[in-house]
Amino acid sequence: MKIAIDAMGGDHAPKEIVLGAMDAVKQIANLQITLFGDEEKISQYLTDKERIQIVHTDEVITGEDEPVRAVRRKKNSSMVKMAEEVKDGRADACISAGNTGALMSAGLFVVGRIPGIDRPALSPTLPTLDGTGFLMLDVGANVDAKPNHLLQYAIMGSVYAEKVRSIKNPRVGLLNVGTEDGKGNELTKKAFDLMKKAPINFVGNVEARDLLNGVADVVVTDGFSGNIALKTIEGTASSLFSMLKETLMSSLKTKLAAGMVKSDLKGLKDKLDYSEYGGAALFGLAAPVIKAHGSSNRRAIYSAIKQTCNMVEQRMIGTIKETVETMQQGKGED
Amino acid sequence: MKIAIDAMGGDHAPKEIVLGAMDAVKQIANLQITLFGDEEKISQYLTDKERIQIVHTDEVITGEDEPVRAVRRKKNSSMVKMAEEVKDGRADACISAGNTGALMSAGLFVVGRIPGIDRPALSPTLPTLDGTGFLMLDVGANVDAKPNHLLQYAIMGSVYAEKVRSIKNPRVGLLNVGTEDGKGNELTKKAFDLMKKAPINFVGNVEARDLLNGVADVVVTDGFSGNIALKTIEGTASSLFSMLKETLMSSLKTKLAAGMVKSDLKGLKDKLDYSEYGGAALFGLAAPVIKAHGSSNRRAIYSAIKQTCNMVEQRMIGTIKETVETMQQGKGED
Repeated sequence: MKIAIDAMGGDHAPKEIVLGAMDAVKQIANLQITLFGDEEKISQYLTDKERIQIVHTDEVITGEDEPVRAVRRKKNSSMVKMAEEVKDGRADACISAGNTGALMSAGLFVVGRIPGIDRPALSPTLPTLDGTGFLMLDVGANVDAKPNHLLQYAIMGSVYAEKVRSIKNPRVGLLNVGTEDGKGNELTKKAFDLMKKAPINFVGNVEARDLLNGVADVVVTDGFSGNIALKTIEGTASSLFSMLKETLMSSLKTKLAAGMVKSDLKGLKDKLDYSEYGGAALFGLAAPVIKAHGSSNRRAIYSAIKQTCNMVEQRMIGTIKETVETMQQGKGED
Repeated sequence: MKIAIDAMGGDHAPKEIVLGAMDAVKQIANLQITLFGDEEKISQYLTDKERIQIVHTDEVITGEDEPVRAVRRKKNSSMVKMAEEVKDGRADACISAGNTGALMSAGLFVVGRIPGIDRPALSPTLPTLDGTGFLMLDVGANVDAKPNHLLQYAIMGSVYAEKVRSIKNPRVGLLNVGTEDGKGNELTKKAFDLMKKAPINFVGNVEARDLLNGVADVVVTDGFSGNIALKTIEGTASSLFSMLKETLMSSLKTKLAAGMVKSDLKGLKDKLDYSEYGGAALFGLAAPVIKAHGSSNRRAIYSAIKQTCNMVEQRMIGTIKETVETMQQGKGED
């Protein structure tokens, strides 16, 4: 199994990327990694070259670059070269912690789509209180989704949850403004009807207030609402933790108490740390393309590589292709 | 000033509604209240009838009722009778803690719209870390919004923030998937252009992760996304507090520490309690119609009454009317 990795993307590149890659080859048998980026900088940290090779590139797509233009113009960037490695069949999948929009463009224009899937979906696994986590898609790849796109997200998410996360008969929910059938806007009402007939375990509408309680294993939504939900979870959690910190630092008494529960509170924060769940997959592309979090450290990169290897080993793309083909044949026969 | 109140709506009706009403007439000069509901039940708690009268009604719209049908069929319900009181000019405004959908229907079909406003918006004031709070609209009255609806929300929200919340030159933001100009879906891109030209202090796109940091005084969004954002804030906060509680109760040591900071943590929770900010106004109707939280206690009802009185005193509806008329005249002259 060969994974291509953009060594120049993310806040802690290339150091944490290289360290994570070295951890991965130690843990995962038969894994070969190709790192794309500045050879000199990468070599500083690459103390063990077993099953890891470097392809030197001299351009970098930054967070400030306009995604589509960057992918078109920076032909020799680490991210574009990484995507070409997959397109040309020299790698099975790729990972970048860089510019999310640019990775979506590189995925779409370089790697290409699965036939029958109209739009790729950005799909992170988010934490739940019980530690299981749930997959939410789309969180921003496609902000003007049609009902049929949501149906495709449901199928891809269900295949991923079953094959890669090993959840038997995963519960697929539709993010909506109420739980009753018939609730929602034009988009979700139509998507509901399509999802009801799909070969998935559709549990109906789910509400945003129940997301962290694990109301579904896969939550389907359009890229606009999904992005709002994701960033609201992040913002609310971060605001609450900073308020908690302020409260606990407000007096000698609270500081004393804080000292006693410090490690417990750290554990609470870790529970909500979704770097543990790997990166956000871009579903709908002809090969696994994974967006690791921009602030990824060595551990998050390792998790993303492990997740990517699972997607390759479990033939996730093949299963999505076959499911979509079967559905289209079924339609043709109607 | 006369306020009509549905005494039968909400989890703690009629007791907490009646107690809150008695508190309000004590604090607010010239306030007269008419309570709608079961006279016998209301009388149990109404120990001081000064400036409070009861209008007996023998039907109640429950949380399970289908909103539009309930308003059409339960003609003698406390909520419909309350709305008629406003429509017929016997009250200046009305408040209910009952079925949100039914109150929106009663507002729309009984009280009626302001000329020039296409759709009412449900507009709660939500907490920020600094305690100022921000107005978000719409959070679910209209789940298929058009760009022009968002423009109208922006104007109504700005008038409310300035007149009722006394914020000078309130910052109006558009909830979006990124802060840069040109970001978003078709709806927000078009709404952005309209809001840029409106007579408001438009601060551009704002992201969901910055909401609790007070990134804007008024946050405009469609009813679907707004509902998702609101319920995600509620769900995330409630999940975190239950995780925190669990963590603090996990051992003797943490229990000891928890005892030391109990009142401080209570203060933190209170900071996020938006009953302090009054109810959610339904903007765009011919008179103030206020939805108090379903779990409203005496204090929340008092806050909602105070807020409603402010809306009446500050001639909020009149100002919205005049602003919309001026904008329409400006358009006609183009």
